[in-house]
Amino acid sequence: MTIEASSPAAAGARRRIRLGMVGGGEGAFIGAVHRIAARLDDHYELVAGALSSTPEKALRSAAALGLARGYADYLTMAREEAARPDGIEAVAIVTPNDQHAPAAQAFLEAGIHVICDKPVTTTLADAQRLRALAQSRGRLFAVTYNYSGYPMVRHARRLVQDGALGDVRLVQVEYVQDWLSEPLESTGQKQAAWRTDPQRSGAGGCVGDIGTHAYQLAGFVTGQQPAQLCAELSRFVPGRALNDNVQVMLRYASGARGMLWASQVAPGNENALRLRIYGTRAGLEWEQEHPNQLRFTPLGEAPRTVSRGTGSAHADAARVTRLPSGHPEGYLEGFATVYTEIAQAIHAARDGRPAPAEVLFPTIDDGVHGVAFIEAAVRSSAAGATWVDV
Amino acid sequence: MTIEASSPAAAGARRRIRLGMVGGGEGAFIGAVHRIAARLDDHYELVAGALSSTPEKALRSAAALGLARGYADYLTMAREEAARPDGIEAVAIVTPNDQHAPAAQAFLEAGIHVICDKPVTTTLADAQRLRALAQSRGRLFAVTYNYSGYPMVRHARRLVQDGALGDVRLVQVEYVQDWLSEPLESTGQKQAAWRTDPQRSGAGGCVGDIGTHAYQLAGFVTGQQPAQLCAELSRFVPGRALNDNVQVMLRYASGARGMLWASQVAPGNENALRLRIYGTRAGLEWEQEHPNQLRFTPLGEAPRTVSRGTGSAHADAARVTRLPSGHPEGYLEGFATVYTEIAQAIHAARDGRPAPAEVLFPTIDDGVHGVAFIEAAVRSSAAGATWVDV
Amino acid sequence: MTIEASSPAAAGARRRIRLGMVGGGEGAFIGAVHRIAARLDDHYELVAGALSSTPEKALRSAAALGLARGYADYLTMAREEAARPDGIEAVAIVTPNDQHAPAAQAFLEAGIHVICDKPVTTTLADAQRLRALAQSRGRLFAVTYNYSGYPMVRHARRLVQDGALGDVRLVQVEYVQDWLSEPLESTGQKQAAWRTDPQRSGAGGCVGDIGTHAYQLAGFVTGQQPAQLCAELSRFVPGRALNDNVQVMLRYASGARGMLWASQVAPGNENALRLRIYGTRAGLEWEQEHPNQLRFTPLGEAPRTVSRGTGSAHADAARVTRLPSGHPEGYLEGFATVYTEIAQAIHAARDGRPAPAEVLFPTIDDGVHGVAFIEAAVRSSAAGATWVDV
Amino acid sequence: MTIEASSPAAAGARRRIRLGMVGGGEGAFIGAVHRIAARLDDHYELVAGALSSTPEKALRSAAALGLARGYADYLTMAREEAARPDGIEAVAIVTPNDQHAPAAQAFLEAGIHVICDKPVTTTLADAQRLRALAQSRGRLFAVTYNYSGYPMVRHARRLVQDGALGDVRLVQVEYVQDWLSEPLESTGQKQAAWRTDPQRSGAGGCVGDIGTHAYQLAGFVTGQQPAQLCAELSRFVPGRALNDNVQVMLRYASGARGMLWASQVAPGNENALRLRIYGTRAGLEWEQEHPNQLRFTPLGEAPRTVSRGTGSAHADAARVTRLPSGHPEGYLEGFATVYTEIAQAIHAARDGRPAPAEVLFPTIDDGVHGVAFIEAAVRSSAAGATWVDV
Repeated sequence: MTIEASSPAAAGARRRIRLGMVGGGEGAFIGAVHRIAARLDDHYELVAGALSSTPEKALRSAAALGLARGYADYLTMAREEAARPDGIEAVAIVTPNDQHAPAAQAFLEAGIHVICDKPVTTTLADAQRLRALAQSRGRLFAVTYNYSGYPMVRHARRLVQDGALGDVRLVQVEYVQDWLSEPLESTGQKQAAWRTDPQRSGAGGCVGDIGTHAYQLAGFVTGQQPAQLCAELSRFVPGRALNDNVQVMLRYASGARGMLWASQVAPGNENALRLRIYGTRAGLEWEQEHPNQLRFTPLGEAPRTVSRGTGSAHADAARVTRLPSGHPEGYLEGFATVYTEIAQAIHAARDGRPAPAEVLFPTIDDGVHGVAFIEAAVRSSAAGATWVDV
Repeated sequence: MTIEASSPAAAGARRRIRLGMVGGGEGAFIGAVHRIAARLDDHYELVAGALSSTPEKALRSAAALGLARGYADYLTMAREEAARPDGIEAVAIVTPNDQHAPAAQAFLEAGIHVICDKPVTTTLADAQRLRALAQSRGRLFAVTYNYSGYPMVRHARRLVQDGALGDVRLVQVEYVQDWLSEPLESTGQKQAAWRTDPQRSGAGGCVGDIGTHAYQLAGFVTGQQPAQLCAELSRFVPGRALNDNVQVMLRYASGARGMLWASQVAPGNENALRLRIYGTRAGLEWEQEHPNQLRFTPLGEAPRTVSRGTGSAHADAARVTRLPSGHPEGYLEGFATVYTEIAQAIHAARDGRPAPAEVLFPTIDDGVHGVAFIEAAVRSSAAGATWVDV
Repeated sequence: MTIEASSPAAAGARRRIRLGMVGGGEGAFIGAVHRIAARLDDHYELVAGALSSTPEKALRSAAALGLARGYADYLTMAREEAARPDGIEAVAIVTPNDQHAPAAQAFLEAGIHVICDKPVTTTLADAQRLRALAQSRGRLFAVTYNYSGYPMVRHARRLVQDGALGDVRLVQVEYVQDWLSEPLESTGQKQAAWRTDPQRSGAGGCVGDIGTHAYQLAGFVTGQQPAQLCAELSRFVPGRALNDNVQVMLRYASGARGMLWASQVAPGNENALRLRIYGTRAGLEWEQEHPNQLRFTPLGEAPRTVSRGTGSAHADAARVTRLPSGHPEGYLEGFATVYTEIAQAIHAARDGRPAPAEVLFPTIDDGVHGVAFIEAAVRSSAAGATWVDV
Repeated sequence: MTIEASSPAAAGARRRIRLGMVGGGEGAFIGAVHRIAARLDDHYELVAGALSSTPEKALRSAAALGLARGYADYLTMAREEAARPDGIEAVAIVTPNDQHAPAAQAFLEAGIHVICDKPVTTTLADAQRLRALAQSRGRLFAVTYNYSGYPMVRHARRLVQDGALGDVRLVQVEYVQDWLSEPLESTGQKQAAWRTDPQRSGAGGCVGDIGTHAYQLAGFVTGQQPAQLCAELSRFVPGRALNDNVQVMLRYASGARGMLWASQVAPGNENALRLRIYGTRAGLEWEQEHPNQLRFTPLGEAPRTVSRGTGSAHADAARVTRLPSGHPEGYLEGFATVYTEIAQAIHAARDGRPAPAEVLFPTIDDGVHGVAFIEAAVRSSAAGATWVDV
């Protein structure tokens, strides 16, 4: 029942990283999540923000949060912070999707590390351009595919890497919600409004908002990206501008086959992200809504329930575990692990060291994969749900 | 805690129907299930059988079961039973798939009702021909898609029919096993051997053995058949002659969309048949391995767990319920319900009445749908997993 | 996926045992269950009955069931059946509790094996007397504590016997219902009426009706009976004559400790019989409402879900298994196993052999233990919930 | 999917409360939890600490955490902090149990609010004395029975208060672990060592460490304390100085009855705190390991699964909710809610206002109840598990 010395929460003594934020002001959802995630393990200090695209609201939000420096827009913020000796070292970009690319570009060009929400951009070209930019400037570019921060997802990935499943044959992944079963966007609900608006959300809709999470999770755990896909996008709610359901079949170069389903119109589902992988020797199953357990099923043996924090969980999971088994960790803890690993990479970068090998936060590479998936799905569906290369 | 007077088990006083069986001798699995199912509610008396395609084994099996009349082959049996005043009134055909059609034809032509295992034939033409034959002879032709006998499946069907789900948007169905994860057929295991042999099983493999169960269940509950499908069949086990995994996307004329997954190579899965349906107003979820409960999820309300035998279960479910809630009924009871409803139809036919409206056992129509599905899936997959009409 | 040759359903070829029934006529619940259980594996033929204490109803019920011989009362039945060459070999007694003892006595004295519902009598003295009588007459006396027929209960018992749990420390057992949360007996509901009537039910009430099931299950699995108990019986529903809730603490001579809770007034519970046993090396958990799985938890290892019909289930469970894993067996199958094992013992008795060692149906010994438990619980509670010897 | 303006995480703009800590240095478990909990919603700044009873370790731990002011002992800390204008306003006491009372006394006398871990003291007299002291000094005294911070526990409490359950009849609560199944204390494991040492832990052992959590949870939700109890304490592990299992029967003045079981020797259990309450009209069930759902079972209706963050959760739950439904909150979030509500009360106290009515953090009253329970359980067990007044 001790917290390990190596736990994410144990490293509080290092100087905190100065963090800025773009987006996430009044009425936002994910901005508050990023702030808690950054604070939870005490590796960051949020000191600056351009929290809204409306200057007045941006300043008011910064004051409400007690930030040291509020900005009316992110271009000014990038320029001025870069010029200060005590300027921010990293920025969290938590705007609607269409603002990710220009904001990320501004901060990368100012020499500031970027932590960006997903999908990283609305076009594949933009994502690739940002990847090149981050590389040329030598800055970190993290993309908060936060589900890869859950300890049992780390355990799952290790099972696959260690060959416990044998050769992977089947990848079944789904992310199912119900909150857009009715035209919520027409009521003015802010989260629904931008997510169903092609201008702000990109062509993705459901496939971009949550399909891409499912896709990244499958790739994170299996270590494979599919070579081809066949996708059917649907708009079930009358008047909706973007898809609210997506069904995909996946082909991997290894011969593995997969199915991906994401929906926002399935009553009774909250955030039902579920991954099942089956190989020649064993299977594994994991559900985000009960993230502290993983089902591991060696062929011909009784299935096991592996629990976070127990001796049965791999060191990769233990390393990102804060609490003893049976005291559930949740979404914020998984998100905080992503932030803590980014902090470890930033510290390493400052010292001229490479990021520790065990640090697994998603990067712009995941971001590019994600946008490539969205574009392929849209392309396939537009062609009548035919097979396309990813 | 009383068994209802209308329960399947309450009708024992009627004269028992004389039943014959083809197949189901030594080493068989499903024959014994049919025998228990026929016996459970006491509506049948098993009096004759041609229990194997090997004459000697057929006779030995009949003796072992204590049957009044054992036959060396089913053609003789059809002819002689038809000629007896106390001959069988119905026959259960439980052979490997390739024998279904010739046996069914022989008994229909002899004027005997047919109860046949699924898939009803190995070709669509055969299934259609049998349908016409049954109709012209005025004989009943039941196909034992037994999962439609579960009380909560009846409840699910009623929910859809009554509009409790609103318009159906999504149909997600899967049937997942692991018993063929390795080349079991090469060990001589009888069940594996014929199921993976195109000669005896037909082109179906996994899609024919269990995919068709999933397909029928979805059709039974939704009342809809898909117009088009796109199927990817896979053979994962080296040397296997037939598919052991199938992934399908479905399009319904109503605009609904579906996914179907069946697998025999997913370690940790036994008979994981799972149906999820989502409409504009509610969703429902049901799992065969825990069949006494159904999850019903009205949009915007707390999900309910509806339990067989409670006041929350619809009369359609109560009618096929034997036990109070909390005393689980299982696979044999659901199978027995199919047999009991067939008995009710046979009694009605004998009396010149139509079968009671509430009798819902699957018929040759379901059989034809099932084989049409298999053929369409095979055709789609052979064409590179493209969309085909069902 | 084959049914084992040794399965309960495989032994149909032996001549069927001629069975009679006392009680179980119109409006009864458990009688119909006994009839299905006797029929399921085809070892019995129900030929005679005195199905009600009301002669007219007894005869009408026998006719409705199509019995060969209906009797107006069980004394006549015992006498006449004993005199016939084709008379019954065994009788199932399924009346309210108060009629168990006189009926059992009559049939034992007539030389007929007895299968009696639980609790076997309403007084301990009666139970002991019947035990002596059965012994002196050399007749079998089975008591249908049916839950011991579930395959995974057999597996649990074997785990304890084989020392997989180490020394048993803790026994937590409960049986929870809600059907008597309101004064159902005042509505004339027959099952509620006799169960809450001290004249017909005995002093037990809830403790006799379901507490004794929980108690027997714990004893069956652990192989231990407690030495002392402390019981608090409650009557929550105003006007009720018998207890509807019982809480018990148990002390075993081995040093183990236990708790038993039975209730008929806990809304949301159907037949929630749940057993948990913990030893020095492992624990096990089993729930009657999902009887095909058992949770086995070796100390320091990941918990396993052992499933009926898989290779992980012990031979003791496989022996009483009819279906492949994932095709659920339920309450009737477990009940049928008790009947099938009784049949095996009757066959052995007829041949002058002892019953096979693997036959584990509950006997009058379990019946005596059960009534001793009820009496001790009533005595303890009456003394203010103090510790008493069992 | 918006975070409500009223959410715990939304109030970051207020000046942070200066917090100190006693205990929680190297090798401690709960100290780190308190620090995260205090930080999560950003209402506190940890500035001072006497983190160990070993002065050198205390100072080293404070430096490792980067605290502004490290102290070698808590008496010095209380004195010096009270004298500073920027001294701490509240102190978190997270030592082994025996140091709670002297430390709390020192800080209360210094005019500093106290947040103390449970059980609040090792004797009832101490707890009562501290209650009086806090009252006379006008300081807040919170006791971190953290499970009352879970949103669905708040929902449960509201269900009872609103009469949704009718009159409470039954209270079944348990807290089950396995980590002390073997003599872990003899290996030098620090958490095990002090918890099994009567000098540091008090007479409680298992009943004090986790039994008291179960007891407080039941009282928090029902609003009732039992009048009498009968407790059996056991020491199963040879050589252990304190009980590792406790079984209790409870009598409430209202006529309700209860059972409480706490164990540290039940293999396969992690932190299985489970509460079930049944009334005349409905029941509720909640499990700490899956805290985001609650089962609500109105008599005669289908059970509902009420989920945190949905429209079905009461405003009392929504008020302490940070995330949309389906994104699990866990142990740290519940703990943080306790801290956040304490902060709200401290702000109110500073402004001379009473704490807001909706603030429900446990106080020294809960602390006194908890120690009274421990003492009664020890007393009852010592007298042979007889009934005693609480």
